[in-house]
Amino acid sequence: MHNLSDYLSQHQQQAERYLRKVFEERGHHFSKLKEAMIYSLLSGGKRFRPILSMACAEAVGGVADQALPFGCAIELIHTFSLIHDDLPAMDNDDLRRGKPTNHKVFGEAHAVLAGDALLSEAFLLMARQPKEIGVSNEIALDIVARVATAAGLEGMVGGQSLDLLAENADVNLAMLELIHLHKTAALISASTYAGARAGGGDALQCEKLAEYGRLIGLAFQVADDILNVTGKPEDLGKAIGSDKQRGKATYPALFGVEASRKKAFELADRAIAVLNDFSEDLSWPLHKLARFVVERDR
Amino acid sequence: MHNLSDYLSQHQQQAERYLRKVFEERGHHFSKLKEAMIYSLLSGGKRFRPILSMACAEAVGGVADQALPFGCAIELIHTFSLIHDDLPAMDNDDLRRGKPTNHKVFGEAHAVLAGDALLSEAFLLMARQPKEIGVSNEIALDIVARVATAAGLEGMVGGQSLDLLAENADVNLAMLELIHLHKTAALISASTYAGARAGGGDALQCEKLAEYGRLIGLAFQVADDILNVTGKPEDLGKAIGSDKQRGKATYPALFGVEASRKKAFELADRAIAVLNDFSEDLSWPLHKLARFVVERDR
Repeated sequence: MHNLSDYLSQHQQQAERYLRKVFEERGHHFSKLKEAMIYSLLSGGKRFRPILSMACAEAVGGVADQALPFGCAIELIHTFSLIHDDLPAMDNDDLRRGKPTNHKVFGEAHAVLAGDALLSEAFLLMARQPKEIGVSNEIALDIVARVATAAGLEGMVGGQSLDLLAENADVNLAMLELIHLHKTAALISASTYAGARAGGGDALQCEKLAEYGRLIGLAFQVADDILNVTGKPEDLGKAIGSDKQRGKATYPALFGVEASRKKAFELADRAIAVLNDFSEDLSWPLHKLARFVVERDR
Repeated sequence: MHNLSDYLSQHQQQAERYLRKVFEERGHHFSKLKEAMIYSLLSGGKRFRPILSMACAEAVGGVADQALPFGCAIELIHTFSLIHDDLPAMDNDDLRRGKPTNHKVFGEAHAVLAGDALLSEAFLLMARQPKEIGVSNEIALDIVARVATAAGLEGMVGGQSLDLLAENADVNLAMLELIHLHKTAALISASTYAGARAGGGDALQCEKLAEYGRLIGLAFQVADDILNVTGKPEDLGKAIGSDKQRGKATYPALFGVEASRKKAFELADRAIAVLNDFSEDLSWPLHKLARFVVERDR
């Protein structure tokens, strides 16, 4: 047993089913906006964040269903950030997951609006009827605050701002880590925290899993930057070498690919060490996921 | 007594003080993003939405302080929508409240990010520690869901999408009302609902004040469109005639200025009629505000 790829595919399908239903009964008067939102949301993401939320709910003895609205809300936020990131004024990307980017299909105005609406809808998902899945109002509100923090000024959007300012600038290790911590790790850490909290974890467990999330979030970003140098465009569904072209601040740019690979594995090991206090029976997917994040080829 | 202009200036100052503090202790590592957010947030708005929230809290026997975080959160959302609306890909405006628009000062990328961060931070404001102002977690979460709905796919952003699609198109009255209802009235209605709910109003009171908000929201938009034809640029802080130039769907464009003025007053009267069940002593500012919305010259 303990097969990660079965676990991933089962939980990915669970997230996928949930995400397909989110807008099913909504937005009839707003078909173009809805289409733009769904185009990016249902474009075959790995569903890494919802899976992490579910795995953390299970790691503290809860069930995946309790984490689902929160993990999927974070997937909406992640999707919004990709749409805005790809805009001509930002990274100006034409391809994402092997398909034309949102603004290439729906135009810039609707790409801006689709991102805006996904961010709003994420908070609706978290706030509506948490009791139906056995999550108290207090816990749901706490998760809302955590996710909003992880997304906003001192979170992902703050990190994107630093990332833009670092293009073609002299960036040291401290700044690089600040960027990664906010641009990527903050929201992944919110996913693990949210799952643990929704699954009934106590304060210490939730903070430990938030720390696990932060560490694999950092590992994830380093691995991503390595793939941008060494990956195959057909595996990644987007162009490679774009970071270098844009003068992006990355680990490989600062330290080279080999040292970066070592750094990624070290972060994964530190994440796994955080899991010591959790039952191996319940937390084995998190162990394996930490490795998976740095070993993936897409 | 019962002087509206004193009431407005006192409550506006209360909102202004709160808004000035929101980011005071935050975002030290993210100075450019923070500056862009504050540039638009503290640029002399009328604070109409927070004032409405406070007035509704008072109308149900609560206090203004209970409504303040929610009303100000909605002001953050309003500000985000103005920043994104002004972007070159959207309305492409150079001036807002007499100052260069956000992207003119900070560049398009940071204008996108400043809007994104303001939207996230709005939810943080609503979710963090409602109990400190005597608002339960249940009520705060209910307000979060209401505001998220009013902002998202079936709310303001949905309305903006329809508004863009209606440019230079044949628009009938039903579509025009659908646009106004979502683009403008939804968030104003969320302001009045949030204030009433935070102030301890019962379900019926909250829905009535939501309806009041919807009606003055519609009146507000009609009045705005009239001002875009007849107003003075120096009063408005932005160009006039821009709606016509862009082929925007507006009341004056469909029915002329006189019929539009009549419509605005009619909406204000209907809003005032909703207040019948509220104590005159507590709800007089809402009575006067309904008139003020349609009589203002900026």
